[in-house]
Amino acid sequence: MSAAPLKEGAVIGILGGGQMGRMLAVAASRLGLRVHVYDPAAHPPAGDVAWKTTQGDWDDRGALGAFADAVDVVTYEFENVPEPSLDAIEAAAPVFPPRRALAISQDRLTEKEFLTSLGLSIAPYKPVGAAGDIPSALAATGAPAILKTRRLGYDGKGQAPVAGAEGAKVAWAAIGAQPAVLEGRIAFDCEISVIAARGQGGATAAFEPGENLHREGILRTTKVPASVSADTAARAVQYAERILSALDYVGVIGVEFFVQDGALLVNEFAPRVHNSGHWTQNGALPDQFEAHIRAIAGWPLPPPRRIADVEMENLIGEDVDRAAEHAADPGTALHLYGKAETRPGRKMGHLNRVWPKGEAP
Amino acid sequence: MSAAPLKEGAVIGILGGGQMGRMLAVAASRLGLRVHVYDPAAHPPAGDVAWKTTQGDWDDRGALGAFADAVDVVTYEFENVPEPSLDAIEAAAPVFPPRRALAISQDRLTEKEFLTSLGLSIAPYKPVGAAGDIPSALAATGAPAILKTRRLGYDGKGQAPVAGAEGAKVAWAAIGAQPAVLEGRIAFDCEISVIAARGQGGATAAFEPGENLHREGILRTTKVPASVSADTAARAVQYAERILSALDYVGVIGVEFFVQDGALLVNEFAPRVHNSGHWTQNGALPDQFEAHIRAIAGWPLPPPRRIADVEMENLIGEDVDRAAEHAADPGTALHLYGKAETRPGRKMGHLNRVWPKGEAP
Repeated sequence: MSAAPLKEGAVIGILGGGQMGRMLAVAASRLGLRVHVYDPAAHPPAGDVAWKTTQGDWDDRGALGAFADAVDVVTYEFENVPEPSLDAIEAAAPVFPPRRALAISQDRLTEKEFLTSLGLSIAPYKPVGAAGDIPSALAATGAPAILKTRRLGYDGKGQAPVAGAEGAKVAWAAIGAQPAVLEGRIAFDCEISVIAARGQGGATAAFEPGENLHREGILRTTKVPASVSADTAARAVQYAERILSALDYVGVIGVEFFVQDGALLVNEFAPRVHNSGHWTQNGALPDQFEAHIRAIAGWPLPPPRRIADVEMENLIGEDVDRAAEHAADPGTALHLYGKAETRPGRKMGHLNRVWPKGEAP
Repeated sequence: MSAAPLKEGAVIGILGGGQMGRMLAVAASRLGLRVHVYDPAAHPPAGDVAWKTTQGDWDDRGALGAFADAVDVVTYEFENVPEPSLDAIEAAAPVFPPRRALAISQDRLTEKEFLTSLGLSIAPYKPVGAAGDIPSALAATGAPAILKTRRLGYDGKGQAPVAGAEGAKVAWAAIGAQPAVLEGRIAFDCEISVIAARGQGGATAAFEPGENLHREGILRTTKVPASVSADTAARAVQYAERILSALDYVGVIGVEFFVQDGALLVNEFAPRVHNSGHWTQNGALPDQFEAHIRAIAGWPLPPPRRIADVEMENLIGEDVDRAAEHAADPGTALHLYGKAETRPGRKMGHLNRVWPKGEAP
């Protein structure tokens, strides 16, 4: 599916009005485009900078249809958009990235089968449908392992560690006794991710990999350049592009990898702008948000130029209380999300520490 | 006047909803702040990214008062805000930059007297109240010279060249026969400008000078680094800081200089974010828009860090038709203003060509 490039004043519809929608709206404004956000909340973060906001539930087909009628293209800022919501939209407006990407990423088992079908390496895994499946699954994946729900997991939610067969029942209960996948825990050297975009004509544009640090299942920091070889970085980009191509993708994707003795195992992908790509806001042209808008709006996608060294740090929960303190540090860009309520584990903002290219300490 | 730092969700009121307001709104969003724009137009460019927009005339005291009641601090994006409009606001909300800066910058003669009183060098000038004053003024300024209205001039409007006494009547008619200043035309090596901020506590933070190229009275390009010595750059920053201090200023100022054999003559200042500071959006942290928001919101103002080489180019009138073409150039950041109607001489957007620091061709 391909559309003519959107002109000044055209409207991008965004499903979800969180921080991703907020930063997409800002990027759209740089191209003279307007944003209309759809979100169940009355005052979502993206509403502060959106041209229009529709408050509506995900199952309100009337509101979704009216929203679709009022925009030129629809995208989404999170991968848990219910599939039926898209049925109410697609008749009126094109949706990017494509639904197949969304469907695959919503089911961890389907995602693993898809990645394997592309010849990409992933951690050993086994589907789990009951606590009783876990001991035999462990035999295949090795111990320790992690039990993860097939659906609706993010930021470490819906996951439980499994040290051995004796922990099967506790882990199964911890994830809510629902269809799951057991993954072998990888002893990796580092985690990296590739943010890449693909346009409506099939051209791709990838950012160089960032190096990620997670804690308690939540991304804490990403830095560029990553401490991997040029060859490893190039292979990671190739693998991301293989995924984009197989999905006939349009938009930005985030692909996470484990690096193990120079080998690359795909952890997962997200069919959207990605937290580990926030460094691009202050370190590359265009940034990931503008790359996404360019792709879905039919604009050119030149190869991104990295202009600086960056360390991105998430401000999680009460971290945000120190925002003004961070703001006093030279070379530090703050990005606060305008969320009224601070909760433990909630992403409240992030900061990018920036140095001229090659000068990061 | 000093206020506590504005917290997440606080509202910045901006008088004027043009491109400057639009880019200020985006900067405010990064700090978790909201923007309420006041503009006579129904759909001003800043409305696309503002939290709220009030459509109102500059003499509508009721609308101005209600606007002021609804925000935490008021700033303006252009220097021709009518002084009486501010009377309706100041009772309800603090206004930054201070009114004295606005008043001085609104009158070219007052501005020149002010700059001279600070010991700063400026081009030779004489006030002109009638066509008959021009010949004697020319004797003082030298010929050729430029006749400029005292008030409401911008982007080359309200100006007429005067080659000699015989052109007095034509020039006087061309500027609309109103109170004016005759300025001697300076043979300069280059034009530079300093963008600097001053916070509520008196701390200042200046960007290094950009080098400007004007054509037909309109800024065309600004590049950093400028081709001036470190000593010249440092003096330009000192002079800008002298102006900030004398005005007990809060916010960002733009000060334009002529460079003549290493000497610096102040051309003019603008009490607002400045077109020649647009390079900072992709070349410095924070950028001029965020520096302004930080200053008026009581946030810290660390010294700006330049992270890249930049050439800014304005897209004027039909230049904007080539936006998509420019968007295909690697390392080029587009900033379109969302203006529906293209008119000759109208600023429709700008682009920043960006290279890692030290790598500009």
